[in-house]
Amino acid sequence: MLGSTHGTLTTDARRARVIACGERRPHPAVHGRPADVADLDVSGRPLHAEVPDLDRFFRPESVAVIGASDAEGRPNTGITRQLTAWAERVGARLHPVHPTRESVFGIPCVPSVADLPEQVDLAVLLVADPLPVVEQLAEAKVRFAVAFAAGFAETGEEGAAAQARLAAAVRRSGTRLLGPNTNLNAFEEFREDLDGPAIALITQSGHQGRPVFALQELGVRLSHWAPTGNEADLEAADFISWFAERPEVGAIAAYVEGLKDGRSFLLAADRAARRKVPVVAVKVGRTETGARTAASHTGKLTGADAVVDAAMRQYGVIRVDGLDELQDTAALLARARPPRADGVAVYSISGGTGAHVADLAVAAGLRLPVLSQARQAELHQWIPPYLNVANPVDNGGHPVGDWRGRKIIDAILDDPEVGVLICPITGPFPPLSDRLVRDLVDAAEQTDKLVCVVWGSPVGTEPAYREVLLGSSRVATFRSVANCLTAVRAHLAHHRFVRDYRSPFDDAPRSPSPSFRKARELMRPGQQLSEHAAKMLLRAYGIRVPREQLVTSAAAAVRSAGQVGYPVVMKASGARLAHKTELGLVKIGLTSAAQVRDAYRELTDIARYEGVPLDGVLVCQMVEQGVEMVVGVTHDDLFGPTVTVGLGGVLVEVLRDAAVRVPPFGEDQARDMLTELRGRALLDGVRGRPPADLDALVEVVLRVQRMALELGDDLAELDINPLMVLPRGQGAVALDALAVCR
Amino acid sequence: MLGSTHGTLTTDARRARVIACGERRPHPAVHGRPADVADLDVSGRPLHAEVPDLDRFFRPESVAVIGASDAEGRPNTGITRQLTAWAERVGARLHPVHPTRESVFGIPCVPSVADLPEQVDLAVLLVADPLPVVEQLAEAKVRFAVAFAAGFAETGEEGAAAQARLAAAVRRSGTRLLGPNTNLNAFEEFREDLDGPAIALITQSGHQGRPVFALQELGVRLSHWAPTGNEADLEAADFISWFAERPEVGAIAAYVEGLKDGRSFLLAADRAARRKVPVVAVKVGRTETGARTAASHTGKLTGADAVVDAAMRQYGVIRVDGLDELQDTAALLARARPPRADGVAVYSISGGTGAHVADLAVAAGLRLPVLSQARQAELHQWIPPYLNVANPVDNGGHPVGDWRGRKIIDAILDDPEVGVLICPITGPFPPLSDRLVRDLVDAAEQTDKLVCVVWGSPVGTEPAYREVLLGSSRVATFRSVANCLTAVRAHLAHHRFVRDYRSPFDDAPRSPSPSFRKARELMRPGQQLSEHAAKMLLRAYGIRVPREQLVTSAAAAVRSAGQVGYPVVMKASGARLAHKTELGLVKIGLTSAAQVRDAYRELTDIARYEGVPLDGVLVCQMVEQGVEMVVGVTHDDLFGPTVTVGLGGVLVEVLRDAAVRVPPFGEDQARDMLTELRGRALLDGVRGRPPADLDALVEVVLRVQRMALELGDDLAELDINPLMVLPRGQGAVALDALAVCR
Repeated sequence: MLGSTHGTLTTDARRARVIACGERRPHPAVHGRPADVADLDVSGRPLHAEVPDLDRFFRPESVAVIGASDAEGRPNTGITRQLTAWAERVGARLHPVHPTRESVFGIPCVPSVADLPEQVDLAVLLVADPLPVVEQLAEAKVRFAVAFAAGFAETGEEGAAAQARLAAAVRRSGTRLLGPNTNLNAFEEFREDLDGPAIALITQSGHQGRPVFALQELGVRLSHWAPTGNEADLEAADFISWFAERPEVGAIAAYVEGLKDGRSFLLAADRAARRKVPVVAVKVGRTETGARTAASHTGKLTGADAVVDAAMRQYGVIRVDGLDELQDTAALLARARPPRADGVAVYSISGGTGAHVADLAVAAGLRLPVLSQARQAELHQWIPPYLNVANPVDNGGHPVGDWRGRKIIDAILDDPEVGVLICPITGPFPPLSDRLVRDLVDAAEQTDKLVCVVWGSPVGTEPAYREVLLGSSRVATFRSVANCLTAVRAHLAHHRFVRDYRSPFDDAPRSPSPSFRKARELMRPGQQLSEHAAKMLLRAYGIRVPREQLVTSAAAAVRSAGQVGYPVVMKASGARLAHKTELGLVKIGLTSAAQVRDAYRELTDIARYEGVPLDGVLVCQMVEQGVEMVVGVTHDDLFGPTVTVGLGGVLVEVLRDAAVRVPPFGEDQARDMLTELRGRALLDGVRGRPPADLDALVEVVLRVQRMALELGDDLAELDINPLMVLPRGQGAVALDALAVCR
Repeated sequence: MLGSTHGTLTTDARRARVIACGERRPHPAVHGRPADVADLDVSGRPLHAEVPDLDRFFRPESVAVIGASDAEGRPNTGITRQLTAWAERVGARLHPVHPTRESVFGIPCVPSVADLPEQVDLAVLLVADPLPVVEQLAEAKVRFAVAFAAGFAETGEEGAAAQARLAAAVRRSGTRLLGPNTNLNAFEEFREDLDGPAIALITQSGHQGRPVFALQELGVRLSHWAPTGNEADLEAADFISWFAERPEVGAIAAYVEGLKDGRSFLLAADRAARRKVPVVAVKVGRTETGARTAASHTGKLTGADAVVDAAMRQYGVIRVDGLDELQDTAALLARARPPRADGVAVYSISGGTGAHVADLAVAAGLRLPVLSQARQAELHQWIPPYLNVANPVDNGGHPVGDWRGRKIIDAILDDPEVGVLICPITGPFPPLSDRLVRDLVDAAEQTDKLVCVVWGSPVGTEPAYREVLLGSSRVATFRSVANCLTAVRAHLAHHRFVRDYRSPFDDAPRSPSPSFRKARELMRPGQQLSEHAAKMLLRAYGIRVPREQLVTSAAAAVRSAGQVGYPVVMKASGARLAHKTELGLVKIGLTSAAQVRDAYRELTDIARYEGVPLDGVLVCQMVEQGVEMVVGVTHDDLFGPTVTVGLGGVLVEVLRDAAVRVPPFGEDQARDMLTELRGRALLDGVRGRPPADLDALVEVVLRVQRMALELGDDLAELDINPLMVLPRGQGAVALDALAVCR
């Protein structure tokens, strides 16, 4: 059996992992470098990201341009011109490479990479086929290359093969490559006059990064832009990891179509979470259409969206849908200080506006504390008594003539419950709104709390907006209430997340548990296990199953029933048996030897009639009085094994009420899974039923995770359905299980 | 019993309706005018809105300003100044009224309303207490008045009483009143130079209308603004009805905090739907906080949000959450022609942008047809072969130098499957984006299809945006993809809705059905009916109940069981009996006389022990093999009786998976209710179960609606739980029912 387990391994080179005899192979994410065994988890996946030092990529001292041109009308000419200007701006030495030209734009040319006058930091490849050049780069010890050429994985199978060849050449070369199918975005002209924490930008489509780049025109600092294209080598994860270490980076914004590798993305997100650097990402692939179209753009798999979504949440990546949300959320998170409190106060010059924004804020999950009586009395010194100041605070028109307006704002900000002040200015109303804006900006300069303004006018050319609000880096300005609320919620959630964050990689198992030795004996490569064998697998991992015996005669069935204890359940058992209930292959509530004998006969008759081979009949203890759940393992193309928990029976089938997590995850995430379930109340006890044993359910989820990690790809699928979760203190029992070996 | 039914009526003056003896009282929405009996439905609610002629309100020939002032520093002075300028602009004669002044701003004053030199169309009341003036207005036959004063229903009980007195005086006067707690918005300066269909605006908070008003600065025409304030008399519904008849109005935009009356709102929405005029509304009250705050602003009830939401959808009102969505959606719906097809094409200069927008569009429920091979071949004449033109169409950079870009756009618009073209311009990229914008504007001028552009740059000062895009009334321009998709979806949904619209008011029952006579005999005012009585009520309306008999002895029970047919269910029956199952007062699956005799004894014992008075024990036919549903009636403060349908058992309790409708509604809406259910698949048959009898379920919902309308407020609550919906063709049976009489 050991031999045949090896057999599956050789047929499945897609992922290396712990294999049955205990040997390990590094996961591809380790990228061709010898990996220390101690850096791998029990599934053979890396526990640490290897972060390339990208400083010389973004700030090279010398640059070679392969395929440089200054001939009129050639596309490379425009690019060469831009690169020349950029090199001059950042003080890098530029070396055009061209087989026949003497010079390009007056700069002396060399005919090939081998002829470069110095070891360059960066080579920009403007050639149609970068593959032959890559080998020359290795010899010339070029550290980084950028390949513009398109026509790789985004065009289909042939292109994907060409990209694989390119990737292999790059791995051999020692040079790190950005692209192919990328562009000049990394070498744009960034504004140097802006200060404060910056956004670092990663995009898999240059055009999609344009609005974030344009935020500089609104006063938001941008430090880097990595357009990763097809990611034959360097991927988004590398840039996330590296940006997370840069002191000038306040937030990382990413436009992602697909992930190259699930684990390297998680490791990068983990690194950002440890460094408390927020990552805000648009991830395409909510729908089939999006997935298909993205694949034809940068040749990437988008991954199963629910899994990607869960993985992002587990590691604190803030997922947004629109580029406008990406801009607004990243800008806020880059610049805002950690919140002093999670309460939000709404201050408005109109009761209607206050009511509306408060309604939307609460609907968005924000907390609007009712201000204390003392605070309200203080506010009523400056606000007429008939106006509501409990929060939202309605001033009935911000005072213009004197210091009162500022007093009101300061009094709200002074409240210990308030961490965020949101002031929606629905329409400009000079001089009132001008004074209000001025007071808000002044107050923001003097507080460490977050001040947000929603400039509601669709016009947007008003000086109070353009000059005063955008002129302040302390006020976060939005153009819609929805985007403001999205950003504020992300801000509060991010700081809550990083405060409590404990990396699951620190606790991830590195070596197989004693259970593993028992479990691997049960595996049958390429087969679906019988219910009995699947339950033995569960038992190996300490998951409770009913008392049960596998019998092959009616007499043995009656004997077993006596030992298991009446009433019993009897089920036909065999590999490849599914839908037992529909086929009539389950008999419940049998209370006598006669019933057991009859049931045995009936089950074997049906199986014969249906042509289902059995390995026997299970005589099982009958377990009632619990909540039926489903716990399972499935494989995701990007992330490998994932663990799912859902409500059992018709609920999971009809409502797909299930939560998924990507290993490794800790107990906190296992508990979070339960709160995600819409039917969660069933676990808490409804209609007078006792609350279910949540601790036992969480324990099962964690044991299943361990199983998924240790058995790795050998366990193609596991489905405990139902897992009967008994009343609190009584545990959980796997009543049926399906396991498929690869 | 008839007498006591009358008794409840007198104690419940809140709503008049058909009463037991067939007499009718008009519903308050009829507003003090004698209503024709034929204009009322069987519940006594009006079937037609009475629409005031508001032409002279918006375009008065003569205006009196009560409390006019030109004294420095008085608030009324500013208002008088604005009114004077407005009167001059629109050519209205203005008459200041002040007890002591000779003139105001040089215009001769009269001391009181009685002294006005002519019968005025409109009186603006700048006095703190408008009540005494209202009676003078009646004598002077003033048609319309506007009351600015605050301090009414928005301030609490005392203010509400004052508002009720004001409303009563207005009803007597014959003058129609806008306000109190309103402002000058109706008399703003509107741009006269814009043409095409306009937005008419209704707001319950002046400030909240500001951004829609500002759309004029972006070239969108606005025709009217009705700031309705507290709505002591004229309400939002009056303006919806009137605006729907104006030829210049393309769409009605509303900011609504609360509805004065549910029925008048429905009638107004119905009128707009018949006239095919879209109504787009923000409605505050998603949350408790919003509801509470709105009440303290204009003194309105927001209503149960799920009911308001359903009522809006039933009558085609497009509900949005943000003011930015209100602007974008109303502007699109006002100006776009009816769609030629519901297919959406995405055209972009970047594959990434196309993939992203396509993903979001499909997620938003839009249909992106794959373009035909012939169309794709046509597009590939101008677009390189390696780019995706199936839809989204990726041009890899819009052609700048010649006519090809325009050809591409025209070819997409020419496709019969395409009704809407969306072009996201993520970042401006002159000259490419300038040419693209020009081509789009030109193409839009020459097509009757909808062309939308999303200008993705956050800067917004680019000439291509400010001048070219905003300069075109044929291109719908957005600043975010989300708002574009919301508006396009609303546009397609609106036209689908009005195309299929059949007013439920045309089919609403006007006189009681024969069922009503039977049903009213069963009503017991102030009491909860026994299960048996409640089922008789259902039977009166043709809703099937199991064969069952009410017995009061064990012997009778056995006899009944024989007649009903074994197996039987036995249940304790009595008024005020709830949670029978939890109390052990239900016995199922009884198969013999002995079991029936034992069950009778046990049920009566438990009832005695629990101190529950019984009227007997029900012996019922046992019905299995169906889908358990819940159908019920509850009362809403704004809309009166509402009908709910949901999935039964634990699903409705835990997941609150239910849909609600406000009568009157037709069969189409009853069917729509079922599609809203998340667990809808249960009705279609899961795990090999047969599909349920949907027709029978719909029929029960419609019969329950009829019951709710005819019994009106006398039926405080009805709950059929469960309604067992049998397999298709076999009907539905109400297994248990609870009915509470008022």
